[in-house]
Amino acid sequence: MVPRYARPAMTAIWEPEARYRIWFEIEAHAAVKMGELGTVPEAAGKALWDWWATNPKVDVEAIDAKEAVLKHDVIAFLDWVAEQVGPEARFMHQGMTSSDILDTTLNVQLVRAADILLADLDDLLAAIKRRAMEHKYTPSIGRSHGIHAEPVTFGLKLAEAYAEFSRAKKRLIAAREEVATCAISGAVGTFANVDPSVEVYVADKMGLEIEPVSTQVIPRDRHAMFFATLGVIASSIERVAVEVRHLQRTEVLEAEEYFSPGQKGSSAMPHKRNPILTENLTGQARIIRSYAMPAMENVALWHERDISHSSVERFIGPDATITLDFALARLTGVIDKLLVYPERMQKNLDRMGGLVHSQRVLLALTQAGLSRDTSYRLVQRNAMKVWESDGQLSLMELLKADEEVAAALTAEQIEEKFNLDYHFKHVDTIFDRVFAD
Amino acid sequence: MVPRYARPAMTAIWEPEARYRIWFEIEAHAAVKMGELGTVPEAAGKALWDWWATNPKVDVEAIDAKEAVLKHDVIAFLDWVAEQVGPEARFMHQGMTSSDILDTTLNVQLVRAADILLADLDDLLAAIKRRAMEHKYTPSIGRSHGIHAEPVTFGLKLAEAYAEFSRAKKRLIAAREEVATCAISGAVGTFANVDPSVEVYVADKMGLEIEPVSTQVIPRDRHAMFFATLGVIASSIERVAVEVRHLQRTEVLEAEEYFSPGQKGSSAMPHKRNPILTENLTGQARIIRSYAMPAMENVALWHERDISHSSVERFIGPDATITLDFALARLTGVIDKLLVYPERMQKNLDRMGGLVHSQRVLLALTQAGLSRDTSYRLVQRNAMKVWESDGQLSLMELLKADEEVAAALTAEQIEEKFNLDYHFKHVDTIFDRVFAD
Amino acid sequence: MVPRYARPAMTAIWEPEARYRIWFEIEAHAAVKMGELGTVPEAAGKALWDWWATNPKVDVEAIDAKEAVLKHDVIAFLDWVAEQVGPEARFMHQGMTSSDILDTTLNVQLVRAADILLADLDDLLAAIKRRAMEHKYTPSIGRSHGIHAEPVTFGLKLAEAYAEFSRAKKRLIAAREEVATCAISGAVGTFANVDPSVEVYVADKMGLEIEPVSTQVIPRDRHAMFFATLGVIASSIERVAVEVRHLQRTEVLEAEEYFSPGQKGSSAMPHKRNPILTENLTGQARIIRSYAMPAMENVALWHERDISHSSVERFIGPDATITLDFALARLTGVIDKLLVYPERMQKNLDRMGGLVHSQRVLLALTQAGLSRDTSYRLVQRNAMKVWESDGQLSLMELLKADEEVAAALTAEQIEEKFNLDYHFKHVDTIFDRVFAD
Amino acid sequence: MVPRYARPAMTAIWEPEARYRIWFEIEAHAAVKMGELGTVPEAAGKALWDWWATNPKVDVEAIDAKEAVLKHDVIAFLDWVAEQVGPEARFMHQGMTSSDILDTTLNVQLVRAADILLADLDDLLAAIKRRAMEHKYTPSIGRSHGIHAEPVTFGLKLAEAYAEFSRAKKRLIAAREEVATCAISGAVGTFANVDPSVEVYVADKMGLEIEPVSTQVIPRDRHAMFFATLGVIASSIERVAVEVRHLQRTEVLEAEEYFSPGQKGSSAMPHKRNPILTENLTGQARIIRSYAMPAMENVALWHERDISHSSVERFIGPDATITLDFALARLTGVIDKLLVYPERMQKNLDRMGGLVHSQRVLLALTQAGLSRDTSYRLVQRNAMKVWESDGQLSLMELLKADEEVAAALTAEQIEEKFNLDYHFKHVDTIFDRVFAD
Repeated sequence: MVPRYARPAMTAIWEPEARYRIWFEIEAHAAVKMGELGTVPEAAGKALWDWWATNPKVDVEAIDAKEAVLKHDVIAFLDWVAEQVGPEARFMHQGMTSSDILDTTLNVQLVRAADILLADLDDLLAAIKRRAMEHKYTPSIGRSHGIHAEPVTFGLKLAEAYAEFSRAKKRLIAAREEVATCAISGAVGTFANVDPSVEVYVADKMGLEIEPVSTQVIPRDRHAMFFATLGVIASSIERVAVEVRHLQRTEVLEAEEYFSPGQKGSSAMPHKRNPILTENLTGQARIIRSYAMPAMENVALWHERDISHSSVERFIGPDATITLDFALARLTGVIDKLLVYPERMQKNLDRMGGLVHSQRVLLALTQAGLSRDTSYRLVQRNAMKVWESDGQLSLMELLKADEEVAAALTAEQIEEKFNLDYHFKHVDTIFDRVFAD
Repeated sequence: MVPRYARPAMTAIWEPEARYRIWFEIEAHAAVKMGELGTVPEAAGKALWDWWATNPKVDVEAIDAKEAVLKHDVIAFLDWVAEQVGPEARFMHQGMTSSDILDTTLNVQLVRAADILLADLDDLLAAIKRRAMEHKYTPSIGRSHGIHAEPVTFGLKLAEAYAEFSRAKKRLIAAREEVATCAISGAVGTFANVDPSVEVYVADKMGLEIEPVSTQVIPRDRHAMFFATLGVIASSIERVAVEVRHLQRTEVLEAEEYFSPGQKGSSAMPHKRNPILTENLTGQARIIRSYAMPAMENVALWHERDISHSSVERFIGPDATITLDFALARLTGVIDKLLVYPERMQKNLDRMGGLVHSQRVLLALTQAGLSRDTSYRLVQRNAMKVWESDGQLSLMELLKADEEVAAALTAEQIEEKFNLDYHFKHVDTIFDRVFAD
Repeated sequence: MVPRYARPAMTAIWEPEARYRIWFEIEAHAAVKMGELGTVPEAAGKALWDWWATNPKVDVEAIDAKEAVLKHDVIAFLDWVAEQVGPEARFMHQGMTSSDILDTTLNVQLVRAADILLADLDDLLAAIKRRAMEHKYTPSIGRSHGIHAEPVTFGLKLAEAYAEFSRAKKRLIAAREEVATCAISGAVGTFANVDPSVEVYVADKMGLEIEPVSTQVIPRDRHAMFFATLGVIASSIERVAVEVRHLQRTEVLEAEEYFSPGQKGSSAMPHKRNPILTENLTGQARIIRSYAMPAMENVALWHERDISHSSVERFIGPDATITLDFALARLTGVIDKLLVYPERMQKNLDRMGGLVHSQRVLLALTQAGLSRDTSYRLVQRNAMKVWESDGQLSLMELLKADEEVAAALTAEQIEEKFNLDYHFKHVDTIFDRVFAD
Repeated sequence: MVPRYARPAMTAIWEPEARYRIWFEIEAHAAVKMGELGTVPEAAGKALWDWWATNPKVDVEAIDAKEAVLKHDVIAFLDWVAEQVGPEARFMHQGMTSSDILDTTLNVQLVRAADILLADLDDLLAAIKRRAMEHKYTPSIGRSHGIHAEPVTFGLKLAEAYAEFSRAKKRLIAAREEVATCAISGAVGTFANVDPSVEVYVADKMGLEIEPVSTQVIPRDRHAMFFATLGVIASSIERVAVEVRHLQRTEVLEAEEYFSPGQKGSSAMPHKRNPILTENLTGQARIIRSYAMPAMENVALWHERDISHSSVERFIGPDATITLDFALARLTGVIDKLLVYPERMQKNLDRMGGLVHSQRVLLALTQAGLSRDTSYRLVQRNAMKVWESDGQLSLMELLKADEEVAAALTAEQIEEKFNLDYHFKHVDTIFDRVFAD
């Protein structure tokens, strides 16, 4: 975790105190159910929750000190709780194994992380939608291979982003479901010393589903899917980030990351406004998606479990979620405050002297009865003049002045072929598709 | 694609002829709809389908020869079709762009590949289920960290695999849905020269959904998710493969890949039966999951599209699906014919002289009123004797002979603690959870 | 392997015949040495080489047919050779294990592949050097963050590429050395049935070093390093490819991939020349570097060996080397024939009305005795006018006309600050550093 | 960075104070050289170093507070230094760019990290060597595919590890050299405002080489190679870790991670000693090698630079080096204190009743004049009896008692084939090869 790419709410999930609090809840819920079953005295669960109701401070330092001696984190924790609660607490954890606590806790953390990320996505979607509506009909040149192709609108670019992050949201909901499971199944997952109904009870209380079959641990294909999904979402962030970086290039300058008027250095070199937020996002995407690989390698644990997944998860659990949370929020800010320059978009659109409309003219000539070869030759000879003038000449004017062309098409007909509205007649349809929900 | 890791049905999807056949269908469906709309003569679509009804051979060589001249695959194809069908065919592709064909075709291929993979998963699940039922109550030692922990059954191991591949199936269904889209939206996705209803029509005919917003290309986050999902599934294959490899180790030998009696070399060194199929699967899993990275890097195409994704997809499209198909089928064969040795499982279970039951005895002593420290000391002194005998002594017998223990627990009580059934009382519950569907 | 990204010389290395020929050489060299040692009759080696001297056809089909029956590739091969050579051939392979042949062969293939790649790099370096010299002093705007920064020369960009691929070459030489080893050490690497001097002899004949200690297999950290190195080289290809793609953007257009005058479609839309070769290279880089991951996972084989590395290597051995060979050659072609537009570079340099020189003016004003704040204010007020004019006004002219500036700096002094030569005074030094070798 | 996987010396390299101290040194060295050149007053460098000689505290908090206001880390630092040193300090950084400091500093950090890692490798090599010598002739069964093959010695396993980490060291030295460069070349690498001799001087003082050509930044192929190399080294760690995990399995138990006698839980379940250190290392290897991917993606920065590499490096710079340092030290500890059980190794060797020697007997029978088929049949019928007895019968005894075998081989001859020394005759040769240096 890199502090400058971390926001407090997400970071809090991964702090020791949060972990211990989840541990407590799992143990206390289990104790209540075991009390019901008669496995342990009913007083045990009550004592635990009564103490918890006093909103006690979880003394991380004290627990860590115990761990240093006992060399076992869960035992250290249980010991400390027992000291606080009294003798009834000694019935905690009966028949359970450390992984019951650790794995269920990891899943609670991932679910909470997913909830924050889902809220982040909602914020991002809202920002994209607002800007998309604002620029629904702002003309902009569409580019394939970085080369001018045909007109689009800036709103369409944002509609694509909206659709993409809508998919991201759907995927994240599925990924959240993947890890929203609870296992309280004992040393090798057989429930030898703990009744399955305890698992059912704890799962319900913690907002999780039961893990149908566990093997001391919750199977790691679930987590592999979770982190792979974060990697795909990060890649979508990169896509938008790269788009903004391109748009902000000196020669393009159709949009810029927000730059506060007073920001130092902006005036003596007013052109030097660097898209550092989106470059930063590009790098973060690289990191987040790289975590998919060790997450997948974690799946093939040996037999009923080995602990090789654990060191991996100590990195990627916090790092992937914290960084993605930060990245989504940063992207939301970028979109929300993006400086958009419609005039420059129009200027770029016009920069090729109308060459982007040459295909329509070609088609019109063919439809007017000229052979394809002739049509091509007519367009070509005018297009080349425009090209050689570096866009200073206008294809439309040259065509109007070309006698052979004029014989086939009227000036109005030619002008019509240069009309941007032609390209935008289905923008509304696309917006309906994308923003219907 | 490595021929020895390829099966014909999946390979066929990726062959040029299959691709051209899909191209034709897309173009012909589009022509029919355009005919309805009046964009092109109605005769066009009819002529195309009439010709298709003659079940013509797609002459890959002829088309490739054209491409070599024209330097454009789609134009070469259209040309060839036009030669076969006649003048009406020249109305094909009107207002469309190459990517409309290429991207929709890729998605058709991926959907078909997913359908094969789903069938593979069904076969695998059936094989696992059959063997799980067969070994539902076959005792086996559960191992954590490779060390004997507590008893499980071999059926439980398979139940876990069943649950894991059931999740794999669910994920693959979602991944299939991700790529089951069709785009017929023109040069930059604006439908400038093709009506959106054509896309709707073609999508329906090809069994796809419309792509709500495309940008010449279908967005690659869909494909990233698809290939990431295959990577996770491959990792689950690795998990089972590694389990089999472990079970087949000389010292463990609880199961073996099927080995035909006459297989050369099996008799002079009868112990030397190598788990080469599952080792092979392990390597295939590494390759398949590695494809997730370039698939994710493919997402951030520039502006409305660049073609950098294409070279990646020429590798991973066929390689990931063909290899995963092969791997799933191979794993199914391994499971289906796996030689399982219950006697050896029992022998391994017993190998530690009953030490795996020490926890239960410890608990029983505590419940019989002894302090935890005393209980521990009593178990310990007998456990150490067993350990030092390398499992030749029996913990149960030693405990029965230990006067202090005997004072607390009767022989029957002690024996009961060594009863395997205690561990298997919830196997049925777990099987109900896993195999309910 | 994707045929369209494959060149014959590299592909040939990976064809069955090439593999069998290497097998033969290893076996025959080993037989000669064993003959010297008296382990086998001296006639054996002689018979093998005599037959080989007749330049016999290696009948891949016949060997494969044997393998289909025998289920063992090396035995099938030995069998076939024995049939051709006669009874003496039965002494081949004495005391050796299949991996002795297979692993040494893989390394011979990788070494040969590396030799082709090294030649590719030499060609690439030559092309880059030629173009760098040609454009040593061609002014071009340097960009950080995609934004105009200060002037560079196009030659400097190429010098950087030259230095980078010089490093690539050095790395590849080291990577080649990593895999240039030979193991003839028997079933578990103990030389139990084969004398170490055989390994020494064969290594020498095959142009390899002996593997100091093998464990049936040659250790895979060597191959991991090899493939990781290819991944880094591919990433450098991507860097140059991305640079070309940027330079070819419609708004930048400082360079273009070569486009033959007659290439279809170039004239009606003369601006639509897509950098598809470099986009293609970008995708290939993604694939090639992805192979580093499974190569690294291959290192941790179990005990003296398992065969999980093998399926991985069947993919990445050919695919990484064939694709990198293709990519290097393609990049060489791109550089060699790159259309470079110095006028456009100059135009882009001038496009900001001289704002890129504002820093030098600022410094000059300070050195002329004005306070930093005053200097800043003076530059700023003129810079903003240029900016607002979108580069139509000239910063130099405005500064000359600004009375306060003129009071501090003469017109000549101001003009000197806009002199490009100032920036290029150390180009020669850099070229000396880079091209010294 | 995960604190529990971090050691102080390596962590210190990445702390803000260390970074600021390197910044100071670079700036102060540059100021001295610029003083010599007359670019700045000679007093500047002197003032800086005089202050430094007072061993001043670097007030990280104060600098960070300035950065919060100035939004620029290097300017904040320069400001703070200027406050401490006085007016002469204002000549720092003349003609330089932030990246000159930041990139050179990163490389100093990586070089220092590499030096620690090299020392770690030396410690590891020493530990491996000591244990290899100790167990040079400790017999152990060699396993291929996890199945007993032929005898090796435990020392040979360690010799392989020694050879592998010797290669790791050589690679790390090369990787260190890759990043041991210094760039002081200004805004776009042209030395426009800073003389190249400053770079030469600073490089020399900082123990670095000059970067022949930089583009504001030091090219990232160097760092990609560095991190890829760490990934390969981590994979070698995994290999040894997996070997130990295998050896510690209950059924194998040829070696164990050190377990202090008093460690809790060891006695009631004396068999439950888990190889958690090596499992932990396995996971760390997954993480460390995953960093190679984003490092490679960092190479293709846009034009003269973009800052997308930076966020990646904030993660992988510290995380890869700190975790690898920890992992190497942990592995050294594991090897150093590894509990090795030669008796168990012998017992496992014998476990198959001598089947591992069947190949030698087969060969001996052939050499004694029997046909290969007959020899095979004779060995087979005895081998099968051993196999069916689960190793309770002895192949040697059965062969001696087999009349047909006895007709071909004397009892002494048969016994000789079961002599382990036969397998170890070249151990000395291998050790000479490996430990020669």
